[in-house]
Amino acid sequence: MGQIFNNLDPRFYIEGILGGDRTILSRAITLVESQNETHQTVAQKIVEGILASSGKSFRLGITGVPGVGKSTFIESFGKAVVSKGHQLAVLAVDPSSTKSKGSILGDKTRMETLSVDKNVFIRPSPSSGTLGGVTKATYESILLCEAAGFDFIIVETVGVGQSEVAVSKITDFFLLLMLAGAGDELQGIKRGIMEMADAVVVTKADGGNLEKAKAARSEYAHAVHLLQAPESGWPVRSLVASSIDNTGISDVYSMIEEYLRLVNTNGYFLMKRRKQQVDLFLNTLESLLKQRFYSDAEVRNKIENLKNLDANVQLLPFSAAKDLVDRFFKT
Amino acid sequence: MGQIFNNLDPRFYIEGILGGDRTILSRAITLVESQNETHQTVAQKIVEGILASSGKSFRLGITGVPGVGKSTFIESFGKAVVSKGHQLAVLAVDPSSTKSKGSILGDKTRMETLSVDKNVFIRPSPSSGTLGGVTKATYESILLCEAAGFDFIIVETVGVGQSEVAVSKITDFFLLLMLAGAGDELQGIKRGIMEMADAVVVTKADGGNLEKAKAARSEYAHAVHLLQAPESGWPVRSLVASSIDNTGISDVYSMIEEYLRLVNTNGYFLMKRRKQQVDLFLNTLESLLKQRFYSDAEVRNKIENLKNLDANVQLLPFSAAKDLVDRFFKT
Repeated sequence: MGQIFNNLDPRFYIEGILGGDRTILSRAITLVESQNETHQTVAQKIVEGILASSGKSFRLGITGVPGVGKSTFIESFGKAVVSKGHQLAVLAVDPSSTKSKGSILGDKTRMETLSVDKNVFIRPSPSSGTLGGVTKATYESILLCEAAGFDFIIVETVGVGQSEVAVSKITDFFLLLMLAGAGDELQGIKRGIMEMADAVVVTKADGGNLEKAKAARSEYAHAVHLLQAPESGWPVRSLVASSIDNTGISDVYSMIEEYLRLVNTNGYFLMKRRKQQVDLFLNTLESLLKQRFYSDAEVRNKIENLKNLDANVQLLPFSAAKDLVDRFFKT
Repeated sequence: MGQIFNNLDPRFYIEGILGGDRTILSRAITLVESQNETHQTVAQKIVEGILASSGKSFRLGITGVPGVGKSTFIESFGKAVVSKGHQLAVLAVDPSSTKSKGSILGDKTRMETLSVDKNVFIRPSPSSGTLGGVTKATYESILLCEAAGFDFIIVETVGVGQSEVAVSKITDFFLLLMLAGAGDELQGIKRGIMEMADAVVVTKADGGNLEKAKAARSEYAHAVHLLQAPESGWPVRSLVASSIDNTGISDVYSMIEEYLRLVNTNGYFLMKRRKQQVDLFLNTLESLLKQRFYSDAEVRNKIENLKNLDANVQLLPFSAAKDLVDRFFKT
């Protein structure tokens, strides 16, 4: 990250975060994102230290292809959230980004009003890393924000690739922003992403575009209607909104209130969070297990040798695998 | 398996197989299929003992839904194969089967002529087991048959579920039998299975069905034409055949001869076999690794505890996973 940390005492960060100090929160997130081992150790202790104070927020995932108007939507919607008395944190996930500080939210001027609001904390996406690493960093950043008093977390991601799946696994509600007029394929929206959405919002529903947006809403409403009913008992919604006219924004907020009433009553809210934690745990287990195995020198050599063996040489793939696993566990 | 093995000396089986003794071959396959640990150890030694004499065959995978006429096709085609001077072995893969000795090929009367031909060895599918276990058993049974002198191996599987994928991974050529008239969905043929096929044969192309079969062939030819060109350089073929009129059967044989000329010339034959071995090796590595991990008592307990934790308790899925993997490797 290039930053110097004079203070690597976890208590300093824990106390700062619990006291709502945003500079310290920001530096703690940098530690969480860091791939430096010392930083990671400190970050782990910080996250453990604030864990009991985390969890008390609503976590909203927002996705949509570039051009859909994510920043302006979040700007308008964020203002509505803050006006209801919430403390809002906006995080970004973009594992594809190679630019320093990421491409999403990097340009603070894109959210002019929000970025200067004292009830809002905006954090650009981590500069790089694997999807797994970014997911871990984002998940733990959410916990840090919660411990610092933020009770409404927006996690933004670009509507391409695998980051939506990751974001849907760490948020309570997944909002898909769509454009009217453009075909699904044009928008690069895969059916799988549609299936993760708890609501679809057709953006830019203003001026001459309003009727088209309403038609698109009906179309998406029909499309999501065909999908299986979600476990939550929540029928997937389809809305229109305009950030320019500031219409439909409060509908999105009301919808989320309605969702929360439902899932707090039927127990789905906590059930989903626990399921997310268990899934993250199990996925991490397997990736760490493989990482250990494939970083073993003998394992790597053996695999390399096998790949380069003369094609005429007969071999027993099952026995060779068993031998290698047995030897790995013996040493 | 319920059978008593008086003789568990690997040399007895190795010598018998290399001498072409079918009774011993059959008993060796039973050992390979057995889940008994002693049998597995003996089987391993047998397979290692015959390994150098294996490999010299053409391995043909055949699939198609029930009713497509697999048995009658194999009966007619098998006769053509034998008439060309080959020694033919017919094996079956059906991991879904729970009946003793399996449902495919179980009824020997289904292949009346083949089953009494001295140049043919027919082996019903293993009675049960996981797909991975059945794949290993079938792969090693192929090697045993090859060592016993069989130079043409047919591996039959039912056209539903995952067994086709398994069979395509252990054979040189994958033949999909299809019916005319029935829609793809009706036949339960998934696009994925179509994509694995090196050739599609429309069966029952006789009598009043002939024209329909020819139309279906064109349709399938068009469908496979849309698929990406395979690495082998082999354009996927589409044929019609009738087991009753015995038409089209020799075309299938000629097509395979043509395929072999191509892939022996361009090196794809050996390349594919080596790739299959490496893939089987890598897949087995991962499944054995996971098996080791998840059979550990502490790992199982920890996962169980985590799943049953009160939903209000906050936890760190990434740290919990790291701790567990670290502890697993320490002990």
